[in-house]
Amino acid sequence: MTGSRVKVYERPIRFDELDPAGVVFFGRYAHLAHEAIERFFDDLEGGYPGLVNARHIGLPIVHLEADFRAPLRYGDAIRIETACTKLGTTSATLRHEMKNAATFDLCAVVGMIVATTDLRTFRSCPMPADVRAHLEHHLKAV
Amino acid sequence: MTGSRVKVYERPIRFDELDPAGVVFFGRYAHLAHEAIERFFDDLEGGYPGLVNARHIGLPIVHLEADFRAPLRYGDAIRIETACTKLGTTSATLRHEMKNAATFDLCAVVGMIVATTDLRTFRSCPMPADVRAHLEHHLKAV
Amino acid sequence: MTGSRVKVYERPIRFDELDPAGVVFFGRYAHLAHEAIERFFDDLEGGYPGLVNARHIGLPIVHLEADFRAPLRYGDAIRIETACTKLGTTSATLRHEMKNAATFDLCAVVGMIVATTDLRTFRSCPMPADVRAHLEHHLKAV
Amino acid sequence: MTGSRVKVYERPIRFDELDPAGVVFFGRYAHLAHEAIERFFDDLEGGYPGLVNARHIGLPIVHLEADFRAPLRYGDAIRIETACTKLGTTSATLRHEMKNAATFDLCAVVGMIVATTDLRTFRSCPMPADVRAHLEHHLKAV
Repeated sequence: MTGSRVKVYERPIRFDELDPAGVVFFGRYAHLAHEAIERFFDDLEGGYPGLVNARHIGLPIVHLEADFRAPLRYGDAIRIETACTKLGTTSATLRHEMKNAATFDLCAVVGMIVATTDLRTFRSCPMPADVRAHLEHHLKAV
Repeated sequence: MTGSRVKVYERPIRFDELDPAGVVFFGRYAHLAHEAIERFFDDLEGGYPGLVNARHIGLPIVHLEADFRAPLRYGDAIRIETACTKLGTTSATLRHEMKNAATFDLCAVVGMIVATTDLRTFRSCPMPADVRAHLEHHLKAV
Repeated sequence: MTGSRVKVYERPIRFDELDPAGVVFFGRYAHLAHEAIERFFDDLEGGYPGLVNARHIGLPIVHLEADFRAPLRYGDAIRIETACTKLGTTSATLRHEMKNAATFDLCAVVGMIVATTDLRTFRSCPMPADVRAHLEHHLKAV
Repeated sequence: MTGSRVKVYERPIRFDELDPAGVVFFGRYAHLAHEAIERFFDDLEGGYPGLVNARHIGLPIVHLEADFRAPLRYGDAIRIETACTKLGTTSATLRHEMKNAATFDLCAVVGMIVATTDLRTFRSCPMPADVRAHLEHHLKAV
């Protein structure tokens, strides 16, 4: 994925993300994907915390898919390129391409379907207009 | 999944597995799936640690898929039913049905493809006979 | 610490608790100490979850101290011996001796001061009688 | 702590660092303190990863102390001010003041004693000159 529609987030791999084989533990990629979602929504007024705290709306993950291609090690930085690949009425599909920030080697591809949810009732709810607009802005064919 | 071929592992949900919405954070299910794999191989001589430590063989996850159906909360215990649903030459597909241990409600289904890997070279390697036999013993049509 | 006043909890070290040096990451001991507290209160009606969920009372850690003596590795099981070493009006000091379950070698000593807190207001509150009785039962001179 | 000798690191609190009470889980502060150490050594050639990967030297924590003063919540950013408060032959004491980045309210103080260690033998080893110089540069009376 390239182009302006992709939101890019980079940071160094942390020591506590590594497993005894010296590579990022596969389960950490789910955490990294959520971190990328949080940064993805930084452009929204109040960001993702504002959505959760003030509007009691969340985007829980209902489906997760990940392919692990190459390891990330200590000293590497991760580059996460996030785009929306499908936008429904109350749900959306997000795709994270996770790369070695220095070499651009693809390390993992994480896809997730999120469902707009009222956090007070845990029920599906309409997608707020600004969330939809932000996802549309980053909508991209795969 | 039912029957003797399924390996069952149960334990209480821990406080540090919960997110601010009061439910198990979706990323924790990847950790729970790995924990289930570790318990799955407890029947092997030396268990999964013996495989990793003494034989330098691991089963890294190359593909992960998860559907999240219902939340687990604090006070719940999780019941993980693990089976092998496909057995290849060097890889295998494992399927974990994660249930509320009290109600048997299905909370998440996690599938993973693992690839027998020499941890010294990070290359694919033959599946040891005892690992294959154990997977065959728990092989189950979905 | 020995004797009936100490609550003992044992379980295998998990793969995701290890750092790239092959030993349990120091930060995981804080998680292990909380897990031990949860098991410590299993004898209470409803356990620690009942306290939190139904009575909205928690025991947040206000002070933590840990000495790390010897590493735990993959394949080891941890044995945590928990006792109360000081009991105040609203606070208590808990001490966890964390040992290698096979050799009884002392790996870490974790002390924590917990303060009875109303989770709806985050203010100090009286210690419930059953919590106090349980701590008294496990009160032990160091 | 103020002044140029203190190394400052700031970042937003992540969703997966929060507990069901909506505040950063106490155990996460140990992870945050390690993250701060990693950023503290960014000024070294190769940073902390270079020390670990290329020189096989680590700074394991042998003692940890933390006081928790005020909660951090979702939407807050953390500001960690790290200084060296004592410098020995092979060990050093680091002190992290963890603040709300917006209000400068002190949320936690984490102290740790680290011991220069050869990661191949897990034995104490001499402190490299550049590590010592960096610690001296950030040495500060408490």
